[in-house]
This record gives sequence, structure tokens and C-alpha cells, in this order.
Amino acid sequence: MRKADPKILVVNDDGITAPGIKVLIEEMQKIGKVTVVAPDKPQSGMGHAITIGEPLRLDHIDLYSGVEMYKCSGTPVDCVKLAVNKIFGGKKPDICVSGVNHGLNNSINVLYSGTMSAAVEGALEGIPSIGFSLDDFSYDADFDPCRSYVRSISQQVLQHGLPANTLLNVNFPQGNRLKGVKICRQATAKWQEVFDERVDPRDREYYWMVGRFQLEDRGEDTDSYALNNGYVSIVPTQFDMTAHHAIPTLNAWSFDIK
Amino acid sequence: MRKADPKILVVNDDGITAPGIKVLIEEMQKIGKVTVVAPDKPQSGMGHAITIGEPLRLDHIDLYSGVEMYKCSGTPVDCVKLAVNKIFGGKKPDICVSGVNHGLNNSINVLYSGTMSAAVEGALEGIPSIGFSLDDFSYDADFDPCRSYVRSISQQVLQHGLPANTLLNVNFPQGNRLKGVKICRQATAKWQEVFDERVDPRDREYYWMVGRFQLEDRGEDTDSYALNNGYVSIVPTQFDMTAHHAIPTLNAWSFDIK
Repeated sequence: MRKADPKILVVNDDGITAPGIKVLIEEMQKIGKVTVVAPDKPQSGMGHAITIGEPLRLDHIDLYSGVEMYKCSGTPVDCVKLAVNKIFGGKKPDICVSGVNHGLNNSINVLYSGTMSAAVEGALEGIPSIGFSLDDFSYDADFDPCRSYVRSISQQVLQHGLPANTLLNVNFPQGNRLKGVKICRQATAKWQEVFDERVDPRDREYYWMVGRFQLEDRGEDTDSYALNNGYVSIVPTQFDMTAHHAIPTLNAWSFDIK
Repeated sequence: MRKADPKILVVNDDGITAPGIKVLIEEMQKIGKVTVVAPDKPQSGMGHAITIGEPLRLDHIDLYSGVEMYKCSGTPVDCVKLAVNKIFGGKKPDICVSGVNHGLNNSINVLYSGTMSAAVEGALEGIPSIGFSLDDFSYDADFDPCRSYVRSISQQVLQHGLPANTLLNVNFPQGNRLKGVKICRQATAKWQEVFDERVDPRDREYYWMVGRFQLEDRGEDTDSYALNNGYVSIVPTQFDMTAHHAIPTLNAWSFDIK
């Protein structure tokens, strides 16, 4: 390790044994000193959940050589909080990278995604943060085409920093002919859920949620459009959820309290 | 029930037996036809988590008279998805109200809050949605001062509708001398976590997360400022997390891929 090597926190939501985080660790080892804190089990769809009513475990694990690694019993956001407070001891890492997720986190998936919520938490801690996701859910997804982008984007963030209270949501389309990078806005979309209705072996009904992503945006400046056209999408992402434009409308209402 | 009575979906994150949801149900019964779908156990801090790797249970329950009620084994967001798909059968309720939460969800707590995530999910479904929260975690919190505001704000939303892709985050300070309503922006703040370090009866270490809310915003137009000065805060809230202002900055970067 060179003296000036940046301190890099690697997290994810697919769990510490997922192939996607191995790719991220390998690329980050080329850039700096890597510390991994990741869930001990898959935590997809956990959003910005935190663990407040239960104990948290944080255990050292030797999975890949030359990397300081910990598995955590909590959510992706718990991992970031524990990393900052217990492992970095209040000294912040220079960058927090999350993923590479098995499955896209473009558009409104930013809300449901543990990968992105970990990156949001990093940004809340004041750490330049990036979430990476690939459009492939399979265990043997081919992450190789993403590798140089993961490194390049991380190096750009280390070099320039990020605007205040901003992180990056980076998504990769499938395939090995990536056309380049597009800076995008989050596409408007929704999930059309279907609840598969079943009966358990004890004759009680249960549901299993499946869903279909419905793009409701014809804009050509969205992440979905970029991905559908073979580009890597980068959405600068913030956590101020105020609908500033709606404030004047609401100020015209009358709240008649008796 | 009058013919024109609106259909009201009531959800929360503290669980179906929490006193706060009882207050919300009672006030909504004065306005329209109430259907409740709420978690069967506390789900605070679940953020926008959804249940994808496990079955979901949804069971009818008779807790309060004159109300159609269901308890759900999932997260607050699961409750909204199941309500819309399985109970309303694709016909949307006229309004979705979440809470009244035991504890504030102002500022960045919108990210961690199951109460607010349920309301966000309602808005994603195209339903005018509101999250209500009171600055009191205790089981015997006094919700009475909130009642007329809960009703009035809900009626305003039913009357005017809400701007597209916008929901309301409503927070109440403690006490019975509420000064009125302020339309606000989300305050900038962070949580300073402390991880209480303990040893279990089997001699393994564990952590328990506690935190202190740190306001980092001196603005007088924030929800935190309004609450600290005795006002009910309403933040119009959106789920487009794009940092639109940062797009030009990122477009000036060079992603040098070899």
C-alpha cells in the first residue's frame, strides 16, 4: 500500500459471499486500502431499514486475501453505521462503494434497494458514495465489462469529490459492448405487483410477491433510457425528499382547526 | 356510510395494536369508509423494505368495530402493496394515511421511517398519501391535540388532491398548545450513532444501536424549526431522488475507459 492510498469502504446488500462484491473488492484493491463490511446473508429489498429492536453481530472474516473483512447480522445501512463507528473509529473512509448489485437499481428502485440505501447512508455520513448495479440477477452474472467503469468512476469521485449531499447511482446494462456513460435523471416508473396466492402444508393461505417494472417515462434523459440503449447510467442522487415546488401550493390551503 | 364517503386506507409501522393507529382510525371514521392493513408486529425503522424472499401472511382481524381490518406479516410497504392488490382489488382508495407514529419522522428520518415509506408507497401507487407522526415514543402518548389536525389535513388533501408525485410528511410536537401549521422543507441533519457494546450469556460480543439526532440546519423554514417552535410541520415530499443541480457538474467529468 502506498502512503497516499485512499481508504475504501465496500458494502453491499446481496451478502458477503456474493460474486458482485468480490468484483468490487478486486477493482478497489487496485485503487486503495479496502475494508469490507457486508451483510452475512442476502438483504435485497431492505431499503433504508435499520436494526433498532435487536442486537447486531459484527464478526471478522477471512474470505479474500489482503482485505480487512467483516460480516454483519444487520441491514446494509447497519453495515455502514457500524463500519464508520466501530471499524473506522470515527475517522471516515475516503469513499464508500456499494455493490456490485445483482440486478438493476435504476429509476424508483433506488427506494427499495439495500445497495443504494447503503450508499445513501455513506453520503449522510459525509462520505463520497457510489452504488453500482448490474442488470443480471444470476449468480454467474458476467461483471467483467463493468470492471473498468467501476474503477474509473470511483477514481473520478476520489479526484473531484462530489457536490454536497450528493451520491451516485450507477447502473450497468448486460453485455460486453457498453457504449459509454450517460449522466441521467431517475426515470418515472412503478412496479406492478402480482401476489402469487398459495396454500401451505398446514392449509393456511400465504402470498409471495412478484412484480413487473413499468416504465412510465418517455424522456431520453433518464437512466432507464440510457440502459435500454446500451449505456452505463449515472444518476446524481440526493436525500432531500422535499418537493420544493409544491410548497406554494400548500401554503394556499386553509387548515381550519376547531 | 354516505354514498360519497371516500375510501380510506390506514397503515402504520408501529403495528396494528399501537395506540397511534387507533387514533387515526377513529378520526378517519368521521370522514369516510376505513380499511386498515397494518403490520402484525412493530416495524419501526424498516424504511422502504419489502419482503421478496419469504411468504407473506394477510389475516382478517376484528379489533375495532365498524372497520375492515387486516394484519400483515410484512413491512409497512408490503401492507400498502397487499392492500392495493388484494383488498381493494386494483381499485385505489381515495387516500392513504399512515401513522400516527409514536416518534417524530421529520428531517432525514423520512428515509428510515416505515410510516413515511408506507405513505411514499401509497404515492407511488398514485394515491394521495400522508404520513403522521407525534414527538412521543411512549405507549400512553397523548394524541388528542393532533386529532383535529389529522382530520383537517386529510380533508384538505381529499378536497384539493396533491401535486403529482407528492405526498405529505406531517409531524406534531408534544403538548396541547399547538400553534398552527407550517409548510416546511426537510431539515438537514444526521444521526450520531452510539453502539452499545455488550457480551451475551454465551460470551459473544454484540452491539445495540442507539443514536442522537443532530440538527445541522439553522434555517427557519425547516420542519425541525417549526416543531421546536410549537408548530405542526408539513413537508411536501417527493420520491424523485435525482440531484438535478449536480447533472452539469458530472457531465464535465471524463470517464476514461481502457
